[in-house]
Amino acid sequence: MAAKTNPGRFFEDYKLGEVIEHAVPRTVSGGERALYHALYPARHALYSSDEFARASGLPAAPLDDLAAFHVVFGKTVPDISLNAVANLGYAEGRWLKPVYPGDTLRSTSEVIGLKQNSNGKSGVVYVRTRGLNQRDEVVMEYVRWVMVRKNDLDAPAPETVIPELKKTLAASDLEIPAGLDFTGYNYTLAGEAHRWGDYEVGEVIDHVDGVTIEEAEHMIATRLWQNTAKVHFDATFRPDGQRLIYGGHVISMARALSFNGLANAQMIAGLNGGAHANPCFSGLTVKAWSEVLDKAETAAPGVGAIRLRLVATSDGSVGDLKGEDGKYLPGVLLDLDYWALMPI
Amino acid sequence: MAAKTNPGRFFEDYKLGEVIEHAVPRTVSGGERALYHALYPARHALYSSDEFARASGLPAAPLDDLAAFHVVFGKTVPDISLNAVANLGYAEGRWLKPVYPGDTLRSTSEVIGLKQNSNGKSGVVYVRTRGLNQRDEVVMEYVRWVMVRKNDLDAPAPETVIPELKKTLAASDLEIPAGLDFTGYNYTLAGEAHRWGDYEVGEVIDHVDGVTIEEAEHMIATRLWQNTAKVHFDATFRPDGQRLIYGGHVISMARALSFNGLANAQMIAGLNGGAHANPCFSGLTVKAWSEVLDKAETAAPGVGAIRLRLVATSDGSVGDLKGEDGKYLPGVLLDLDYWALMPI
Amino acid sequence: MAAKTNPGRFFEDYKLGEVIEHAVPRTVSGGERALYHALYPARHALYSSDEFARASGLPAAPLDDLAAFHVVFGKTVPDISLNAVANLGYAEGRWLKPVYPGDTLRSTSEVIGLKQNSNGKSGVVYVRTRGLNQRDEVVMEYVRWVMVRKNDLDAPAPETVIPELKKTLAASDLEIPAGLDFTGYNYTLAGEAHRWGDYEVGEVIDHVDGVTIEEAEHMIATRLWQNTAKVHFDATFRPDGQRLIYGGHVISMARALSFNGLANAQMIAGLNGGAHANPCFSGLTVKAWSEVLDKAETAAPGVGAIRLRLVATSDGSVGDLKGEDGKYLPGVLLDLDYWALMPI
Repeated sequence: MAAKTNPGRFFEDYKLGEVIEHAVPRTVSGGERALYHALYPARHALYSSDEFARASGLPAAPLDDLAAFHVVFGKTVPDISLNAVANLGYAEGRWLKPVYPGDTLRSTSEVIGLKQNSNGKSGVVYVRTRGLNQRDEVVMEYVRWVMVRKNDLDAPAPETVIPELKKTLAASDLEIPAGLDFTGYNYTLAGEAHRWGDYEVGEVIDHVDGVTIEEAEHMIATRLWQNTAKVHFDATFRPDGQRLIYGGHVISMARALSFNGLANAQMIAGLNGGAHANPCFSGLTVKAWSEVLDKAETAAPGVGAIRLRLVATSDGSVGDLKGEDGKYLPGVLLDLDYWALMPI
Repeated sequence: MAAKTNPGRFFEDYKLGEVIEHAVPRTVSGGERALYHALYPARHALYSSDEFARASGLPAAPLDDLAAFHVVFGKTVPDISLNAVANLGYAEGRWLKPVYPGDTLRSTSEVIGLKQNSNGKSGVVYVRTRGLNQRDEVVMEYVRWVMVRKNDLDAPAPETVIPELKKTLAASDLEIPAGLDFTGYNYTLAGEAHRWGDYEVGEVIDHVDGVTIEEAEHMIATRLWQNTAKVHFDATFRPDGQRLIYGGHVISMARALSFNGLANAQMIAGLNGGAHANPCFSGLTVKAWSEVLDKAETAAPGVGAIRLRLVATSDGSVGDLKGEDGKYLPGVLLDLDYWALMPI
Repeated sequence: MAAKTNPGRFFEDYKLGEVIEHAVPRTVSGGERALYHALYPARHALYSSDEFARASGLPAAPLDDLAAFHVVFGKTVPDISLNAVANLGYAEGRWLKPVYPGDTLRSTSEVIGLKQNSNGKSGVVYVRTRGLNQRDEVVMEYVRWVMVRKNDLDAPAPETVIPELKKTLAASDLEIPAGLDFTGYNYTLAGEAHRWGDYEVGEVIDHVDGVTIEEAEHMIATRLWQNTAKVHFDATFRPDGQRLIYGGHVISMARALSFNGLANAQMIAGLNGGAHANPCFSGLTVKAWSEVLDKAETAAPGVGAIRLRLVATSDGSVGDLKGEDGKYLPGVLLDLDYWALMPI
């Protein structure tokens, strides 16, 4: 029997500077948009209404920024994370062009760092992943690093290269979509009156609502992004018989829940970092809170930038993140640091 | 911590004559149509096939009438029913324009009645809700009344105004979509041979089929309509750990099941009234029966109107509605009174 | 109470040569495509990307071939299998035209064989089902035979006619879509390097991945195809309280899983036969393996035909099909024999 299936890459298979073209480009449509809104309580008006988007200077309502992220990310799984032991971090994520129904996305990843672990059995791979549309425009990019097993333990360790990554993007690093204009923003249609000026750095917002997670839903979502990691779908894969939920499902759930209190944080423009603090399984009830980390003006008319910590929990706690030991509390699922654009 | 989240409105917050503009307009597409058909066994040909719709004088297959209702209704939840104790009734519902993929819907509600309860702790709010498209045309409207808690028990009671509502719309109150013509109706493609003339007032139809309800499905549906009521999604919200199913999910399920026996009752034109007789939870098997309440001719070629009682049950019973005490039997989930259009 | 519901057809209701026009035509859109990819781990690039499809000579990405099959099949259920005791077999299935978003499909079935069983209580009905688009072009056809109960046991037995059916379609029987050209095929974007020439007759491929089946998912899928068979939806229908999963759900799941090892077997062109070896229920984990049965060249540039046995299992076994008694092993769910088109 020939081995035709994809064994995935092992640590020794990555070469510094190499650009991996990921498979299976994807044309998105109104179907992806409807499913995104059916799977998450997503209500940001710019992504829900073509009319609202046009009033904000865009040609139509784009696909939710995180849906674009999931499509781009999903394509990388067979090449980056099939043999990954752990997803260690994100940095320098930027949304560069809105994605519209009819666009076709594909992904590439450039290997920008490698570091074999001291145990000689695994190593850390740093990649800068880019999502491109059918015009070869980069629609988003982010850095991600994962720990990957070695297959051949005798393979020599590569030279250690750890990329210098910005701990936080500056507001000036953010790309504002061409034409975006919030000077005529309709707060009533958007759902809340709170503008950029109403938020204070340090402010914590309890998003109140919760969603109890179902197996069918996280699998439908994860498949839609063509993410093939076995652990999300096959109940016989883990010894405990549980399906581990794709971390991106929790990100989208928390972001959608954050509408209640941050309805005007319309567009995600930057991802500074993120940690999947604890695994998520079916049956848990996800709630969310946010903390305002920073604020900045932008050059676009009426558009301010707000840096937010978005935390998803399984226990409904608000404001607590880590214990005295510096580790995430058991009820914390996600700790995400991102920049959003909102009307001033 | 500032309270940025929406606390909802309390009884004392409603003013007679006030028009509330609801948030988050929604552009619908083929995605919403596909999801509607995936979530309910919907088979009415006019909503399934562009060709069938064109042969009936419409430009294309509209979105199912109840999907349009759910979109319009969902937008009202944050302003009308977040603090509602009970959904008391519907009246004077009319579908005025078909909704097509590409349309953008928003909702407004006019407060048309107020009555504080004698206990001083809550009151009844009557609203006339309208759904509008991107051309500001009213696509549907209905009256709904809910019991809402007071937050400030010392707030003075408003003057009691109870609107005069028609118990039943006359057939002449119904709006027939422009161009609708059933003179060339294809009964074979529609799925059944029974025309308007074949139904008798008083006739009861057992729709035979049943669907067992899953958590994932009702949540997907309810989110798609951007209905945010906690009780549908959060298993930690009710003391019994059950997620109460959105009443509209039962309406759509029963209407779709009614295809078997009423395949030619194509369009819903009017809603006379409705009661969610008992709560619905995951695991129940929904079945449906209908009773012909009235029939009328219309001015449109080949088009008759039929008034139907649509009953959803959890026990498969047919024909029984209320016990000797005048209360709904425990196996009745829904009692809906509506007008449909069918070929003569 | 008049019986308005569809009782289905019984064995004595079928007449040789009769053509049954099935109800409820269906316009498909990007919504159906998104749902197909959300319900199955489908990743074949030709069906995922308009750009990839155009580079292969097609105007856009078609709907997955099996989605087209499910739509066509679903329409036949009320007329063919409502009173069926068993689905006995498939033969001579051919995909003749790709189906694109915007197409409207309907189905017809010609009765091509009848044989009453010796017990006099049931009989076998052979039909050739055709799916047609809005231009009355046949997009696919297949022969299916089912055992159907008699209602009137005194109805005379029809003359026995058993159609001559090809055990296997020849490669020359396959219809290659107009314009299909794999000479510029991009293996990187397609996801695997293995071309037609890399597969050997007799080769067995373990597709490795598995998906645990959920009630919500198979019901969503089955409804999307407007398949109304009670047994899939109503947990009160079978004495054991289980919902039998639509056989087509297992077919699509297995085909999608076969991407891993057969990513370049892009298009399904022919169905030689198939058996639903054992029933499938929620909770089972479906895996798949394939065996290369035959290979043939085609007249289209760069396009080869490969005949595959696709087997779905519930126990993860690979390569074993039947026991010593000639019966399918209990862990086998599906045994399907089909032709696919792949780049040479």
